[in-house]
Amino acid sequence: MAVFSGPERAYATYQDLIAAESSRPTGSRADFLTIATPNHTHFAIAQAAVGAGFDVVCEKPMTINVSEAQQLAVSVERRRVVFMVSHCYTGYPLLRQAREMVMQGELGQILAARVSYIQGGLWSLQPGQTPTRAAWKSDPAKAGPSGTIADIGTHAFNLLRFTTGLRPTEISSTLLRYHSSRPLDDYGHALIRFANGVVAMISVSQISHGRLNDFRLELDGTTGSLVWDQQSPDQLTVRRYGRPAHVYERNRRAEYLAESARSACRLPGGHPEGYLEAFANVYRDALDDMAKRAAGEPFAAGGSIYPNVYDGLEAVLFVQQCLASSENNGAWQTLQG
Amino acid sequence: MAVFSGPERAYATYQDLIAAESSRPTGSRADFLTIATPNHTHFAIAQAAVGAGFDVVCEKPMTINVSEAQQLAVSVERRRVVFMVSHCYTGYPLLRQAREMVMQGELGQILAARVSYIQGGLWSLQPGQTPTRAAWKSDPAKAGPSGTIADIGTHAFNLLRFTTGLRPTEISSTLLRYHSSRPLDDYGHALIRFANGVVAMISVSQISHGRLNDFRLELDGTTGSLVWDQQSPDQLTVRRYGRPAHVYERNRRAEYLAESARSACRLPGGHPEGYLEAFANVYRDALDDMAKRAAGEPFAAGGSIYPNVYDGLEAVLFVQQCLASSENNGAWQTLQG
Amino acid sequence: MAVFSGPERAYATYQDLIAAESSRPTGSRADFLTIATPNHTHFAIAQAAVGAGFDVVCEKPMTINVSEAQQLAVSVERRRVVFMVSHCYTGYPLLRQAREMVMQGELGQILAARVSYIQGGLWSLQPGQTPTRAAWKSDPAKAGPSGTIADIGTHAFNLLRFTTGLRPTEISSTLLRYHSSRPLDDYGHALIRFANGVVAMISVSQISHGRLNDFRLELDGTTGSLVWDQQSPDQLTVRRYGRPAHVYERNRRAEYLAESARSACRLPGGHPEGYLEAFANVYRDALDDMAKRAAGEPFAAGGSIYPNVYDGLEAVLFVQQCLASSENNGAWQTLQG
Amino acid sequence: MAVFSGPERAYATYQDLIAAESSRPTGSRADFLTIATPNHTHFAIAQAAVGAGFDVVCEKPMTINVSEAQQLAVSVERRRVVFMVSHCYTGYPLLRQAREMVMQGELGQILAARVSYIQGGLWSLQPGQTPTRAAWKSDPAKAGPSGTIADIGTHAFNLLRFTTGLRPTEISSTLLRYHSSRPLDDYGHALIRFANGVVAMISVSQISHGRLNDFRLELDGTTGSLVWDQQSPDQLTVRRYGRPAHVYERNRRAEYLAESARSACRLPGGHPEGYLEAFANVYRDALDDMAKRAAGEPFAAGGSIYPNVYDGLEAVLFVQQCLASSENNGAWQTLQG
Repeated sequence: MAVFSGPERAYATYQDLIAAESSRPTGSRADFLTIATPNHTHFAIAQAAVGAGFDVVCEKPMTINVSEAQQLAVSVERRRVVFMVSHCYTGYPLLRQAREMVMQGELGQILAARVSYIQGGLWSLQPGQTPTRAAWKSDPAKAGPSGTIADIGTHAFNLLRFTTGLRPTEISSTLLRYHSSRPLDDYGHALIRFANGVVAMISVSQISHGRLNDFRLELDGTTGSLVWDQQSPDQLTVRRYGRPAHVYERNRRAEYLAESARSACRLPGGHPEGYLEAFANVYRDALDDMAKRAAGEPFAAGGSIYPNVYDGLEAVLFVQQCLASSENNGAWQTLQG
Repeated sequence: MAVFSGPERAYATYQDLIAAESSRPTGSRADFLTIATPNHTHFAIAQAAVGAGFDVVCEKPMTINVSEAQQLAVSVERRRVVFMVSHCYTGYPLLRQAREMVMQGELGQILAARVSYIQGGLWSLQPGQTPTRAAWKSDPAKAGPSGTIADIGTHAFNLLRFTTGLRPTEISSTLLRYHSSRPLDDYGHALIRFANGVVAMISVSQISHGRLNDFRLELDGTTGSLVWDQQSPDQLTVRRYGRPAHVYERNRRAEYLAESARSACRLPGGHPEGYLEAFANVYRDALDDMAKRAAGEPFAAGGSIYPNVYDGLEAVLFVQQCLASSENNGAWQTLQG
Repeated sequence: MAVFSGPERAYATYQDLIAAESSRPTGSRADFLTIATPNHTHFAIAQAAVGAGFDVVCEKPMTINVSEAQQLAVSVERRRVVFMVSHCYTGYPLLRQAREMVMQGELGQILAARVSYIQGGLWSLQPGQTPTRAAWKSDPAKAGPSGTIADIGTHAFNLLRFTTGLRPTEISSTLLRYHSSRPLDDYGHALIRFANGVVAMISVSQISHGRLNDFRLELDGTTGSLVWDQQSPDQLTVRRYGRPAHVYERNRRAEYLAESARSACRLPGGHPEGYLEAFANVYRDALDDMAKRAAGEPFAAGGSIYPNVYDGLEAVLFVQQCLASSENNGAWQTLQG
Repeated sequence: MAVFSGPERAYATYQDLIAAESSRPTGSRADFLTIATPNHTHFAIAQAAVGAGFDVVCEKPMTINVSEAQQLAVSVERRRVVFMVSHCYTGYPLLRQAREMVMQGELGQILAARVSYIQGGLWSLQPGQTPTRAAWKSDPAKAGPSGTIADIGTHAFNLLRFTTGLRPTEISSTLLRYHSSRPLDDYGHALIRFANGVVAMISVSQISHGRLNDFRLELDGTTGSLVWDQQSPDQLTVRRYGRPAHVYERNRRAEYLAESARSACRLPGGHPEGYLEAFANVYRDALDDMAKRAAGEPFAAGGSIYPNVYDGLEAVLFVQQCLASSENNGAWQTLQG
């Protein structure tokens, strides 16, 4: 793609942007729109962009309620645009390996999962202090009805869906608010039931002192288990009873890795990669679809490896039902949309 | 203490043992009884031993129901014997350090806790196969009504109580049974509420392939957090926002460690200690009390650092209420005995 | 900087490139030249580029002998260009933190250092097989007289210099060749003496099965020690006798980090960064100097934080004296250029 | 064995002890003597004990010079007693696994090894201060001519011999003395050559701030490599090019472990074991031989798995030649006794 920038491509409003870019000829028109604004504005911007036929990359949570998310999914279906939601962790090569192993049955049948995302950033604030960055995250009018579950719980939920492919049926959640700087949940647990008695526990925190971005996945299957942790993203530990633990390492030449994992590696193994490369991998897959769409070719839409509008919708439903459950003392809520 | 052994001190039944040892003169009489039999026999043996005035070390779960546990506590109070329950992890020096830091307010007010105990041993069995060791653990008539929650969940619960001192109020639990070799729970989660909105999540598994004894504690307080993991028991990581993580290491000479932690260290720091030393530390503390009792001196009884009959009772109540909650779809149950 | 590319800017030879780009007006002329060709060509290309007044980024080893390196240093001095050598590890934020701590005396006086760089890549080859990538690395005519010591030993040497600032005086080295695919050293140790009895050990391997890029630094000072490992590049462990170990983590907001470390951080702490960001940090510092030079302002030249022509020269001398020592059964060789 | 103790078995001198115990009848006589006195006394006590026909467990270094060590070996051969030297690390189950894997050719031909033992204990002392414990270690008249190389370098050397079985031919060493409290070496490197171009590097320190007992072994073979570290003694990492790293874990039931490793495990896998169990394993093997000798059966003598008098002699020769090399600017010294 050619690169265009400069003051004439910076617009006062998203409406201006969409109008002006829509009127440009193919070739100099913006290829796609990235929406990285406060949560409450995602829906209107995304609807306008999709309506104008633009491909979209949208931050999570996709919208602040399920109704908006459903409408957006309808629009995306109608206009047949590429729509990616920024669940960036799905780009880590070894999470793609985990997904592939589950899909290929290498862990047998999945029985249980545990996902935790532990942060401590709220302690940067004094009681009552407004953060200088992302202040809107503390304002329910802009962040939506949830704090931590929307902010990082959606990543945990998406990762669970991404790696297991299992369809959730219901959820029981307890959310808490400990820190005084934000009138929204900042800690919580959500227990998810899937068909066949499978359960997954999601635990999230933004009040754990000194923890940075401790995002961890554990899967248990009938023939193997695995553990991945963002603090050592280039390793995936796979265990089977009675055998040595196997540590898979990010390495584009490792024949033991699945093709989807290998192709997500950039550097020689052992030279650490991180969050930016993972994010770029997700973008790259969405851009591949955008290129196909631009060429009039069929593209993935609903079944993409990158998180799409349906993943976005599911995550918004997850947030809503966590809140509903927590407000009802943990009563089970459906997750079937 | 003098050491006596030999065939004449081995008895056919516990009744014989208690009768014969009771009739021996002080000095050659057994100092205390250790009960490491299948769960369903703990109560009768313990009652007889306590009734005969013996100090007791009892495996966990202390009994297979709350009623028995309560009766036993009454007996212990009445006879004023020393009664230790084998929650051996409380002997790890760095868990004693954790407890001390919480008690001294070094983490501020505790807000939340996460404890997980993940094992995979059930996969040693083929479907329907009876284990050669501890076969009774798969027999509800002998193990009691719970499998994993009683076997290792009680350790997790005890560790939570040991390190935080917080009083639980209610519990919501979901237990599962995945493996076909045992008609009892082998996986589960329990969310515990304490006063003041504090919550703790306990997660246990015996079906996680290749996981051995991954026992992990995370505590979040208003001024600090900590993490301990049995896989590196000689380290305790303490974090505060905006500061480097501090790794406390087992070291009897480290002045930064609390006295209760230092005195539980045996070897020079860096020479790994493990489970046996932890267990021995708990025994040592109970034996100190036994020596005091033998000398007619006051001893700790209810407020001991080693797990006592009340800790045993609490853990049995925890198991019972986990089962009750799980059978009622996760409905909250009281934990106030 | 503006970005120019296209077939008209691709040249058949470096001479063509330099001639053509030199004749372009400022603004559309290449800003600098990156030399990432086989080792034996670095010198001629660099000399031509410097002679034409271009700033240069040159792969390591800078040249294949000391004489060339010295001539190049003279040229750089004469033309006053910016010259960076690609010792990319110096861009890791926590290695900059290490350097800063040493410079500020936070470890006291440095006494000793150990640096190891362990790889296993040669086992990708069958005996006698020529690698498909970087085949020239196995050809002494192109790689120069050394294999592993030039390839990764120079990184180890540079890191030692970067973090300690100490001036080496002499070296004793033993190099070995184990793998049959390459007629050059693939394993070795080098013991370096500095003034005041300080020693550093460098250990390198390219024949350690399954090891990827295990680059590790340990420094011992009179009041503290530190350890850094590329396998967890976002952590730096600092220890002082009698205190908990301190783990410094990459975090642009951490006030406990030096400014030079913080400014080398891009993402929020806990989102892993890696090799590419480190490399980019080194480039950024060199580009800052290039911008200053372009503006006629003074720039760092010899005293830069990025590795410069003198660092390149030192590393080439290091390689030469390792070879000389090894050929003389480990006899000490001077490192004073 | 029966256990005897009490004041009547405590003696004023070793001569008294040997004389008195020798005169006791079999059955109540001491089974063996453990020598854990300052280094300079080992020889005389050991000679007397062996001369009187006692089996012996002797601390390392076995003697303070080679001549004594040779005489002692002759005595042991003559009297056919069991003689164990306390290189306790050889009892770690996963180091026995490493040895077994090397012996079975699972790493192919060993090419290179790196062993480091890093401590920081000397910083407990102020300059000139005499330690309260093991003060004799700072007194050359009692410790012998070496400090750190004798104290922990011998462990490193023994571990190398234990795991590889390779016969060393010559050594080049550089020893340093940094800390003012002790007039003996406290830091050093030793490069050992074996037949066939194999080399091993030993690095030792007692001046690395805050490091406790970081004892680490790395072996490189033609078909695999391995790493073991005392800080996680229950794991052994084995790597082969192009395959996931395999982490072997201490587990008496793991069929993938060698019998010699499994039989050295006590607890279920995942319950940490440590230094005491390792030490006990070495004792147990020596006691097995003592029991055989007592029964008039053949026993291992020179070819034992526990370190014996020849291992003790080799280690003393290693110390002597390190000193000789270091005093001669690193000149190679023979290690062939």
